[in-house]
Amino acid sequence: MLLADRVHLTATFPVQQKFYSGSLAPSRGRVVPAKVHNSLCFQTKPARRTTVRVSAMNREQLHSLEGVAQQRDPATNGFIFQQTMYRIKDPKASLDFYTRIMGLTLLNRLDFPEMKFSLYFLGQYPPEEVPSDPKDRVEWTFLRPGTLELTHNWGTESDPEFKGYHNGNSDPRGFGHIGFHVPDVYAACKRFEELGVQFSKKPDDGKMKGLAFIKDPDGYAIEILNAQSSRQFA
Amino acid sequence: MLLADRVHLTATFPVQQKFYSGSLAPSRGRVVPAKVHNSLCFQTKPARRTTVRVSAMNREQLHSLEGVAQQRDPATNGFIFQQTMYRIKDPKASLDFYTRIMGLTLLNRLDFPEMKFSLYFLGQYPPEEVPSDPKDRVEWTFLRPGTLELTHNWGTESDPEFKGYHNGNSDPRGFGHIGFHVPDVYAACKRFEELGVQFSKKPDDGKMKGLAFIKDPDGYAIEILNAQSSRQFA
Repeated sequence: MLLADRVHLTATFPVQQKFYSGSLAPSRGRVVPAKVHNSLCFQTKPARRTTVRVSAMNREQLHSLEGVAQQRDPATNGFIFQQTMYRIKDPKASLDFYTRIMGLTLLNRLDFPEMKFSLYFLGQYPPEEVPSDPKDRVEWTFLRPGTLELTHNWGTESDPEFKGYHNGNSDPRGFGHIGFHVPDVYAACKRFEELGVQFSKKPDDGKMKGLAFIKDPDGYAIEILNAQSSRQFA
Repeated sequence: MLLADRVHLTATFPVQQKFYSGSLAPSRGRVVPAKVHNSLCFQTKPARRTTVRVSAMNREQLHSLEGVAQQRDPATNGFIFQQTMYRIKDPKASLDFYTRIMGLTLLNRLDFPEMKFSLYFLGQYPPEEVPSDPKDRVEWTFLRPGTLELTHNWGTESDPEFKGYHNGNSDPRGFGHIGFHVPDVYAACKRFEELGVQFSKKPDDGKMKGLAFIKDPDGYAIEILNAQSSRQFA
């Protein structure tokens, strides 16, 4: 665990620009004192005297952070964090992107003609595992953890008045991105470039090397990371 | 497969209000002709003559939709859809909500003092599986599929000027929600009510029965669904 009474850092990165542009580079040589911050105290009271890199916590310390439940409530048994939904303009473009470029499988499509929208579910499952029977497929899909749900409100794909969706990374902010671990960030990004994918951060842009952000057809951010090289963040 | 030359429906739901309020109820008795829509043709050309409930597609038809890659590119081997990130105001409130109420485990916290933010990763993994060694834990976390990443920009939790984050479901729209399968939507929602969780749709509100939307401490929407009862949508 790293302790220091005070740290001097070469950059304070504007928080509002975090994670969606290539501007992660340090500010130009200006040395600013970092806010003194006791990250262990951070759990319970304002920073006072020391800087602790709490990334260096052990599991017990991690699970003692304020707010963390000390036991899983049995009432949550069987809960499955199943989906992340965002809206898309054009299912053809998004299906192409997420299946051909990102390697996901289309798990299901549900249509709601009365409400004029369709839902597309994608996930990392072998195509041959997707049930052929529609009712079985619905049940199966909703039992898969970690799927991506794309909502298509009919007509946006051909509506010249449609202004597109908001990716959450400019005001008003909220949602940030989804992210993929890949075996090799540089190889993956080389392929993305060859396939014409748009980047908001290439792997060597800015301070965080080996980490990239690409854009899906609607401009949603997708982080491209590698678990092994992320050890540097601890 | 359900075919009809024309369908008459009792409601067209305002698309822009979909999925985040209790207003899924039909409009008041007004019978409007639905847009004639051939959903199979929808893959390749505009709707013309028939309405097909393509939810009734078999797997082969599903995977023949325009845009869907016919083979997984081997270059995507090893990709893991790993995370969904959004920003939070107060980690104490969010950790409490996602661990105590939703049953997730805190997998890791990473601090970036220079940039004054911390990341919290949560997922459905037994707490005792979380590695205690910080570097091992980072690698392990980034190899888990389907985690939730919460970004805390330091100071928002105590900043009276901070206006909160945007949940994506009012203009400008984009991100919609995350979703949990639960074994029993009504039992889960009864518990959520007892725990003081805010709802934007209770299970029996509107047209879609047995499906609820709750709000996390920042107002992000969480769908509460049951896979078995979702068979009705096919």
